[in-house]
Amino acid sequence: MDKKLVKVLDTTLRDGSQASSVSFTLNDKIRIALYLDKIGVDFIEGGWPGSNPKDYEFFKKIKEYSLEHARVAAFGSTRRKGVSVKDDVSLNSILETGVDTAVLFGKSWTLHVNDVLKVTKEENLNMIAESIDYLKDHGLYVIFDAEHFYQGFLEDREYAMQVVKTAEEAKADVIALADTNGGTTPDKVYDITSFVVRNVKTEIGLHMHNDIGCGVANTIMGVLAGARHVQGTINGIGERTGNADLIQIIPTLVLKLGFRALKGPESLKELKPLSRLVYELAGLPPNPFQPYVGDNAFAHKAGVHADAVMKNPRAYEHVDPELVGNSRKIVISEVAGTSNISSYLEHVGIKVDKKDPRLKSVLQKIKELENKGYSFDIAPASAVLIALKELGLYEKVFELKYWKVINENGLAVALVKVNNYLEASEGVGPVNAIDLAIRKALNNIFPEISKVKLTDYRVVLPGEIKNTESVVRVTIEFSDGERTWRTVGVSNSVIEASVEALVSGFDYFIQTSKKLKPLLA
Amino acid sequence: MDKKLVKVLDTTLRDGSQASSVSFTLNDKIRIALYLDKIGVDFIEGGWPGSNPKDYEFFKKIKEYSLEHARVAAFGSTRRKGVSVKDDVSLNSILETGVDTAVLFGKSWTLHVNDVLKVTKEENLNMIAESIDYLKDHGLYVIFDAEHFYQGFLEDREYAMQVVKTAEEAKADVIALADTNGGTTPDKVYDITSFVVRNVKTEIGLHMHNDIGCGVANTIMGVLAGARHVQGTINGIGERTGNADLIQIIPTLVLKLGFRALKGPESLKELKPLSRLVYELAGLPPNPFQPYVGDNAFAHKAGVHADAVMKNPRAYEHVDPELVGNSRKIVISEVAGTSNISSYLEHVGIKVDKKDPRLKSVLQKIKELENKGYSFDIAPASAVLIALKELGLYEKVFELKYWKVINENGLAVALVKVNNYLEASEGVGPVNAIDLAIRKALNNIFPEISKVKLTDYRVVLPGEIKNTESVVRVTIEFSDGERTWRTVGVSNSVIEASVEALVSGFDYFIQTSKKLKPLLA
Repeated sequence: MDKKLVKVLDTTLRDGSQASSVSFTLNDKIRIALYLDKIGVDFIEGGWPGSNPKDYEFFKKIKEYSLEHARVAAFGSTRRKGVSVKDDVSLNSILETGVDTAVLFGKSWTLHVNDVLKVTKEENLNMIAESIDYLKDHGLYVIFDAEHFYQGFLEDREYAMQVVKTAEEAKADVIALADTNGGTTPDKVYDITSFVVRNVKTEIGLHMHNDIGCGVANTIMGVLAGARHVQGTINGIGERTGNADLIQIIPTLVLKLGFRALKGPESLKELKPLSRLVYELAGLPPNPFQPYVGDNAFAHKAGVHADAVMKNPRAYEHVDPELVGNSRKIVISEVAGTSNISSYLEHVGIKVDKKDPRLKSVLQKIKELENKGYSFDIAPASAVLIALKELGLYEKVFELKYWKVINENGLAVALVKVNNYLEASEGVGPVNAIDLAIRKALNNIFPEISKVKLTDYRVVLPGEIKNTESVVRVTIEFSDGERTWRTVGVSNSVIEASVEALVSGFDYFIQTSKKLKPLLA
Repeated sequence: MDKKLVKVLDTTLRDGSQASSVSFTLNDKIRIALYLDKIGVDFIEGGWPGSNPKDYEFFKKIKEYSLEHARVAAFGSTRRKGVSVKDDVSLNSILETGVDTAVLFGKSWTLHVNDVLKVTKEENLNMIAESIDYLKDHGLYVIFDAEHFYQGFLEDREYAMQVVKTAEEAKADVIALADTNGGTTPDKVYDITSFVVRNVKTEIGLHMHNDIGCGVANTIMGVLAGARHVQGTINGIGERTGNADLIQIIPTLVLKLGFRALKGPESLKELKPLSRLVYELAGLPPNPFQPYVGDNAFAHKAGVHADAVMKNPRAYEHVDPELVGNSRKIVISEVAGTSNISSYLEHVGIKVDKKDPRLKSVLQKIKELENKGYSFDIAPASAVLIALKELGLYEKVFELKYWKVINENGLAVALVKVNNYLEASEGVGPVNAIDLAIRKALNNIFPEISKVKLTDYRVVLPGEIKNTESVVRVTIEFSDGERTWRTVGVSNSVIEASVEALVSGFDYFIQTSKKLKPLLA
């Protein structure tokens, strides 16, 4: 047995879909499952067939694909009280899916046995033993999730261990210790997991939640204590504050602690695109501050930090961002130094010494605009336009001379004049309509503009979010299929701010396409 | 000495403002500082006067207030190489602020000494000793932050300990061990901190970053190893992935590990409003999944969870939400059961048995709408309106018969007809204009409407975020000063979806004001 191999069970499709505001369609689930298989996840918990009928369709549909490596698992509870296993709806619903792996949860905390299930402690043990037996008899690989194990252990150690021993005697293939309420501290997770590993021969797994912000750390401490099977979700989505985030756990196990997981280091490069896919399908905004994969995870804002990473990346980077499919970002803002700006210009192909006095005036201009509500760290393309102008490298190609939008009962129509081209378009909202109209006009001047797409649009009321009368800041992300860039606009009208960001975004594309190297996002 | 007392240093105003996209105004900083003082934070790190001139104004302005308890600290680095302390700009800038406490950072990792500072190891020790001496000679309380201590210790233990011993000999009041790059795992933090605590008499502090998602856990492990001073930021905002989040650390230390911090348990109730204030002033959306204070931290979505917490809250709640100023939320969605809906109706004063067949048809209606892009877990007021209609408790008070918006060069004008009232208003954008016009009309029918304010407005493109042509979902949060509620609208026009959510929000207020108890948000 390979002592450094950690098996990974992903429950994004089951526990993840219990997150507030998250609801996956059948196609979403298939797309996520295929990606999980591609990167080498060992088990994909696809759903809870006894609880949600939509999950049946998933188990049926996924059989049409031949997975490379992953086993698809169905989730369900031990049999109900007073019902024999062969008549139990939940257990039979697992069998009906046709999977070869089950994740069966049972209670290991006296409080749940007494107050929620309302059965005797002995009956609960029978429910566990008989349910595992039944699934094993049908040839399934059984992962037993001991729910609330850590709380159970702290309040009634003897009973919690009886539950684990019962699962072992029933020949569960894995016994996963769950911190279902997510309130256990990492020191206790380490001690309790070590105790179980010493006293049980079955492979031990971990199922952590993040209610005290320790979901990731608790999983790591549990692996260090001897567990070799980890359960979690992509981006940590899940009930309440969520599950342990596999996106954060796996690189730490592999890059910092010498464990092996998935298909090895190559899989880690897929973590950022996988994280993005799940955010998109879950309808959640990506978290820019997310460890390893967030847009800011390797962003350097303070002047001294930016300066130091250029001398030696290890100075402020705990791992090479490329190992996890991410990249370094040097942030331009009022706390930046001229190093930040010169490094940014280098990305677009312009070499300027960081002591060049013109960079001081670029920085001055940026600080003035930030006082008015602009923010360039999230919209560096707008800062690059300012720098090009200050450095005398900007060439005016187009001008938006006039614009107007009319909204009436759901129809938005925009009229724009760019140079001498007057164009009209309709859209799903005023911004969409203006976007289309400007694009139509620009097409006459710079046809490559058709490659440019809007990929994100955000409105922030800086300072006092709650005051709808204050200045608004709009940031827009653009992509031409190869590179991505963001611009910013500020005004007391959201539409005017949007127009400013739109015009800057197209302008940036034209300016940099003409003479510059791609900008790193 | 009280062995269970943990001192708290907040660096939201300094390290927090190094977060990408965050920029506080002077007034923001004062508001945050006053709130931190109110809850009993021991040290408020107000800024880095040598690096950012705006920070001087803060130190000047904060003197106009008499703080109850907190000491205001200025941040700065050890003297530069080849400069004597009395001529060092950075050290003198700390003195010029007039504070009585300094947070002085120095390097404890050989890599930084060699590659970033480019001085000999001995010169670095001299820089540390002389800088602490200089500040102590001027009567300051000195907290020495040993930057990169954990990495330094792992790569050159002898030198890292020499740095700590040097700071101790120079009589630093606190020596804070920093995991500046945030890449150290909790097991190593525990071992290394224990080693330092055993070998040093000075009070040991912790300064953790979150680059591997362990900022909170590392701080907890460091305290368990004997540190009694913790540094962090509100909501964990900071450089790259952020700092250790005090909002998550403090309740765990107090409620789960028996430590004392701030003014005791009463202070914990202020954590949610403090967290909100910082998000607002930082221009960041609150994280609904944040441990302890997030809107979903005590939200129960799965039917079995909702059912169990009604039997015994401890079943799925690791602490009582009220201890941290939060509250339980029962989520209504397609994976909900009728328990979720009946519990929600109970909050608005309607008792319906969870087995009432009409609840099944409410659930059916909700599932149908969720398939069309609606999401009720984030907008329960819209679900309540559906339930009132199904239960025959809805009384139609107004109807929006006509609406139109015109946008022209930054001016948005809306025209609406509500019942027989035709009204026009202008606003900063089309939604603001319609909001004002509907409100003006409703004022004729239901004058209490003037109490209602829009407190949040969000647009999501469900499913495929990046496709601007698809259906949009708008959610709006309303408040009447006492209670808060959210509604949802879906359409292929963002304005039409906004109008739907606006109308539902006003309707909810009118329906529930007439006969119902307040709704819990």
